[in-house]
Amino acid sequence: MDIKETSLKLHEDRVGKIEVISKLKIENKEDLSLAYTPGVAEPCKKIHKNKEDVYKYTAKSNLVAVVTDGSAVLGLGDIGPEAAMPVMEGKAILFKEFANVDAFPICLDTKNVDEIVNIVKAISPTFGGINLEDIGAPRCFEIEEKLKKELDIPVFHDDQHGTAVVTIAGLINALRIVNKKFDDIIVVINGAGAAGIAITKMLNTMGIKDILLCDRQGIIYSGSHNNEYKEAMANITNKYKRQGSLKDALVGADVFIGVSAPDIVTKEMVESMNVDPIIFALANPTPEIMPNVAKEAGAKVIATGRSDFHNQINNVLAFPGIFRGALDAKAKEINEEMKIAAAYAIGNLVSDDELTPEYIIPNPFDKRVTERVAKAVEETARKTGVARI
Amino acid sequence: MDIKETSLKLHEDRVGKIEVISKLKIENKEDLSLAYTPGVAEPCKKIHKNKEDVYKYTAKSNLVAVVTDGSAVLGLGDIGPEAAMPVMEGKAILFKEFANVDAFPICLDTKNVDEIVNIVKAISPTFGGINLEDIGAPRCFEIEEKLKKELDIPVFHDDQHGTAVVTIAGLINALRIVNKKFDDIIVVINGAGAAGIAITKMLNTMGIKDILLCDRQGIIYSGSHNNEYKEAMANITNKYKRQGSLKDALVGADVFIGVSAPDIVTKEMVESMNVDPIIFALANPTPEIMPNVAKEAGAKVIATGRSDFHNQINNVLAFPGIFRGALDAKAKEINEEMKIAAAYAIGNLVSDDELTPEYIIPNPFDKRVTERVAKAVEETARKTGVARI
Repeated sequence: MDIKETSLKLHEDRVGKIEVISKLKIENKEDLSLAYTPGVAEPCKKIHKNKEDVYKYTAKSNLVAVVTDGSAVLGLGDIGPEAAMPVMEGKAILFKEFANVDAFPICLDTKNVDEIVNIVKAISPTFGGINLEDIGAPRCFEIEEKLKKELDIPVFHDDQHGTAVVTIAGLINALRIVNKKFDDIIVVINGAGAAGIAITKMLNTMGIKDILLCDRQGIIYSGSHNNEYKEAMANITNKYKRQGSLKDALVGADVFIGVSAPDIVTKEMVESMNVDPIIFALANPTPEIMPNVAKEAGAKVIATGRSDFHNQINNVLAFPGIFRGALDAKAKEINEEMKIAAAYAIGNLVSDDELTPEYIIPNPFDKRVTERVAKAVEETARKTGVARI
Repeated sequence: MDIKETSLKLHEDRVGKIEVISKLKIENKEDLSLAYTPGVAEPCKKIHKNKEDVYKYTAKSNLVAVVTDGSAVLGLGDIGPEAAMPVMEGKAILFKEFANVDAFPICLDTKNVDEIVNIVKAISPTFGGINLEDIGAPRCFEIEEKLKKELDIPVFHDDQHGTAVVTIAGLINALRIVNKKFDDIIVVINGAGAAGIAITKMLNTMGIKDILLCDRQGIIYSGSHNNEYKEAMANITNKYKRQGSLKDALVGADVFIGVSAPDIVTKEMVESMNVDPIIFALANPTPEIMPNVAKEAGAKVIATGRSDFHNQINNVLAFPGIFRGALDAKAKEINEEMKIAAAYAIGNLVSDDELTPEYIIPNPFDKRVTERVAKAVEETARKTGVARI
C-alpha cells in the first residue's frame, strides 16, 4: 500500500487518533466520592473563591484548544470543519507526543470573525492556551489580534508564528555558514499570507537591514494594495520604496524565503542575488525552486518544507516546545521575545562542529528540541513579565 | 484526612483528572507522514466528499462534549465556568471509565441562552453527542429544546433525563414489590426544576393514572404560575385540577418522588398515602424525609440519592450506557423510547430472586449495567429510526 492508502486505513482502523482518558481509576464507591460527588465540591469551592486556583486543581493548566474553521486546511483549502478534523486530531497528538500537552480539536462551523472570537472567548475557561490552525488570511490576523487583546491565556496561530520561528531558526544557522549578520542582509519574502507576514514581522523585530515582501503583484510598497495588513507590512519593509517584480526584488538580495507557489524562482534569479545566496523554498509539496537547481545557480544554503530533502523547515520543531514553555510558566501570552528565544533555542542545538549547509536544522525527533525550546520560552515568559508563576 | 482534604489533594497532585492521548505512537518520519502531513490529507478529502465519513475516520464518533455554564453546579449554585471544571472533568472520566466514551469538558463563560445554543452548534462538528450539565432551570429547557431542533447529534441534559431514567428504573422495581401498575398509580413529585419536570414528562409518556407536580407554592395547576414550563406541566398532570399543598397532594397517593429540599415530608404525610407507599426522597445530601422515619410511617420501598442508604438513585447507572448506545448507533438524537428502554434495562438487572425493598437498583459497579443499557438504547435507536447505521 502507498502512503495514502496506509493513512486512510490507519484512520479507519482506529476511528480517529485522540482519546480522552482518566488520570485515575474509578473502581468503587470511594473512588467515585473523591473524583466526583461529594468530594469534588472542594476544588470547586476553592476555585470559586480564587479563580486562579483553576490552574492548581484542573486540567486547564495543560490543555490547549486546536481551533479551526476548516477554511485553509493544508493545501486543500476551504474543506470545512468536519473534513479538517483529521488534521486537528493530528496536531493534537503531536502536542501530546512531542511535549506532553493535552490538546483538543475544536472544529468550528462558522467563518465569521466575530463569531469565532466570541466562541473562543466563551470556551476559554477550559483551556490554558489557544492554538489557531488552518484559518485563512486575512481573517486569521483579525481573529488572533482580537483574541490576544481579550484573553489572558496564550493565543498562537501556528501557521503564522510556528512557521516564522522555525524559518528564523534555520536562517540563524544559515547566516552562521555564510558569515553574515541580520543587520547586514536583505531578505526577499515571497507570499504575503499568514506565514509570509509573520516571518516579515519577526525579522523586522530582530533588526534586519531590509526586507522586500512580494505577492503575486510583485514588491509590496506603501499604497500598492488596498489591504490594511499589506499596507502595515509596506510600512515596516522596503526602506527604499522599491517597486517591481519578484525578479527585480531578488537582484542583490542575500536571502530568499518562499512561502508561496511551485516553480516561480529560476536559476537566473538566484544567480542575480548577492554572494552566497540563501534559499528557503518552502512551498509544499513542490518548492519555489528545486534544491538541485538552486545549488547549480550558486545557492550556498537551501531549505525546503519537505522531509525528503536536507534542512526541512517543520513546525513540529517549534509549537510543542513553545506551548510547553508557555504552559509551564502559566503565561498570559506568547510574546515576540518568547518566539525569538524559541528560534535561537532551535538554532543553537546545531553545534559549530555539526553545522554544514546540509544540516542547519535539528531533527524533530531529537528529544532535546522540545526541552530546550520549552525552557527558553518559559524563562523568557518570566523575564518579560507574562508568567503567572 | 477526611474526604474533603483527600479529594483536594487528589485534584492538586494530578492537576486535574483528564488527559488527551494519542491512539498511536509518533516516533519517526514515517509515523508523522501517516498521522499528519502528507498522509492525513486522504481522510480529509474523503470527508470533504462525503461529510458522514467523519464518523469513519475521526474521533467524532466517540466524542461527547460535557457542556456547562457553571450556573447550577451540584448544590453549590452559580459558581461560574472555572469552578465548574472539576465537576465536568469528573463527569468526563465517568464517561470513560464506565462506558469508554471520550468526553471533554466545555465550560462556557456566558449564561445567555442564544449564545450557548450558537456556541454548541458551532463546535458540534467535533462531537458525536452533547451532554448538557449543571445549567440552571428554566434556561436548561430552552437550550436543550433549541439544540435538539438544530443538531443531528444527540443532545441530552443529564440533570433532567439521567435522573429521570434512574428514578423510573427504581420505580419500575418498586412497583414489582408492591404489585401495582403504572396505569393504576398516582405519583406526587415535589420540585419543579430540571429533574422534576423531566421525571414528570417521562412518567406521562409511560401512561400513568395521575401525576401531581408540586413546587414551593404547592400543587401546580393550569393558571397557577406565570411560567411556560410549569403551565405545560399543568396541562399533562393533575387530571382533576386539584389545588393545595404538598400535604394535600400526598393524601391517597401511591408514590412520592422528591427532587427538592431537606426534611419537608413528615411521618404524618406518609401515613396519609395509599397502601404500600413508595418514597423516593432524592434531595442531597439531606433527603425530604429520612429513611428510618419513612419506614416507621409505613413506607414499603424507600430510595434516596445517598450511597450510605439502600437504593441509591445514581445517574452513573444511566448516562454512560445511554451515550454508549447512542454513539454505537451513530444516533441523531436520544428520544423518549430510548430513555424508557434504558430505564427498563436498569430495572431488569434486578431479578425476581434478588428483588427486595432494600434492593431495587443494581450496583453502579456491576459491569452489566452499562452493557445492557447501551444495548437497549442502541436497539431502540434503530427501531425508532434515529440511527445512522
